[in-house]
Amino acid sequence: MRVAIVTVGDELLSGDIENTNATWLCARLSDRGVDVGRVTTIPDDVSTIARVVNEYHAEYDAVIVTGGLGPTHDDVTMEGVAAAFGRSLSEDPTVIEWLEREGGYSAADLTDGTTHLPTDARMIPNEEGVAPGAIVENTYVLPGVPTEMKAMFDRIEREFNGVPKHTEIVTADEPESALIDRLVELRDRFDVTVGSYPGGTVRVKITAGSRETAEEAAAWLADRVQRPEGSDERQ
Amino acid sequence: MRVAIVTVGDELLSGDIENTNATWLCARLSDRGVDVGRVTTIPDDVSTIARVVNEYHAEYDAVIVTGGLGPTHDDVTMEGVAAAFGRSLSEDPTVIEWLEREGGYSAADLTDGTTHLPTDARMIPNEEGVAPGAIVENTYVLPGVPTEMKAMFDRIEREFNGVPKHTEIVTADEPESALIDRLVELRDRFDVTVGSYPGGTVRVKITAGSRETAEEAAAWLADRVQRPEGSDERQ
Repeated sequence: MRVAIVTVGDELLSGDIENTNATWLCARLSDRGVDVGRVTTIPDDVSTIARVVNEYHAEYDAVIVTGGLGPTHDDVTMEGVAAAFGRSLSEDPTVIEWLEREGGYSAADLTDGTTHLPTDARMIPNEEGVAPGAIVENTYVLPGVPTEMKAMFDRIEREFNGVPKHTEIVTADEPESALIDRLVELRDRFDVTVGSYPGGTVRVKITAGSRETAEEAAAWLADRVQRPEGSDERQ
Repeated sequence: MRVAIVTVGDELLSGDIENTNATWLCARLSDRGVDVGRVTTIPDDVSTIARVVNEYHAEYDAVIVTGGLGPTHDDVTMEGVAAAFGRSLSEDPTVIEWLEREGGYSAADLTDGTTHLPTDARMIPNEEGVAPGAIVENTYVLPGVPTEMKAMFDRIEREFNGVPKHTEIVTADEPESALIDRLVELRDRFDVTVGSYPGGTVRVKITAGSRETAEEAAAWLADRVQRPEGSDERQ
């Protein structure tokens, strides 16, 4: 299963806030064995949202869109997603019913932006806030407020399934360039994915389909690199 | 000036590391009055890099690509960028000369991945590491290691120029939905950009072309919202 994540918000593109939602979603999806093929951040602009969602929903198995839900004039994500699927936005009775029952709001209190979903969308209730999410075909629309987004993802995560992978980390106290031949041999010998992340020391991340393979590959490499002082056999 | 940022790296898409490079670049470009139209994260994959850079370099005034430079097998960004422009990778004599002179490396020590740039690219020297960056037409290729990326951006930032904007923040201790009418009036009355960021309190960000307008608009709003206890006149 391959997923694209679209994070919507001018405040992300101006560098005002770190895109922690994307990182959190990537980690959760990876834990489920789902590949994230792309993360894209775009402005609060209907036509851009429509164009990007339209493109990705055809290219990926699923699209997760976060941000830009709510009552203010710059919350245009639902409108963009509706346009991506050639649908209109309309008042959704399940949203009104849920907000009246669970949220204690009366329909009269709620602004249009909060109760309108793309036609024939499925509502995702917002347990931590007001504005609901929506599912339109393979596209999941979640809020941008992290507590709301996370609670909503918890409700839908069972729809995202892949083949979980196993990961081991080996830390080497050598220049990354010096390790190249051993990393290539590691990859070929064990048929694993190898990533290396330089810093003070080099972290080598080994990913395999089974725990046994990941551990064997990590043990093989750990015996062949200079370990940082005070490190365990593997770390 | 509108810019797209492309961050390359499997480690970003697996949620292993926060994409702080993108946020840093967004903030620096915003300070220069440059609009960031899009940030996209893609895997260490030549054809994906080529396709995305090819698309963005036509759509945006400039593209900044970071990550995936260096000697290891998953450092394929230069190859992808070269392909985006229909060029090949070749050993660049200015890279070898610079690394021998400034880095104390001899050509024999250097791996292909480090000395090869797209044909006719301009090298950007790496003062904090080894692998050089490159400029190909309107596309700037920088390393992923933050210290290296930042030092390299400092060298090229004068090529990114927009109209700097002025920003004021007003904090309101009211629900975001209650503020809507005032925010719309604020926007229309002063012709400013208004963003609102809910949390415990709502932060309203006012952006204008002149400092006077931003300050007038902020003062107008500050007089009309419930301020958090202990706050200054504006904050």
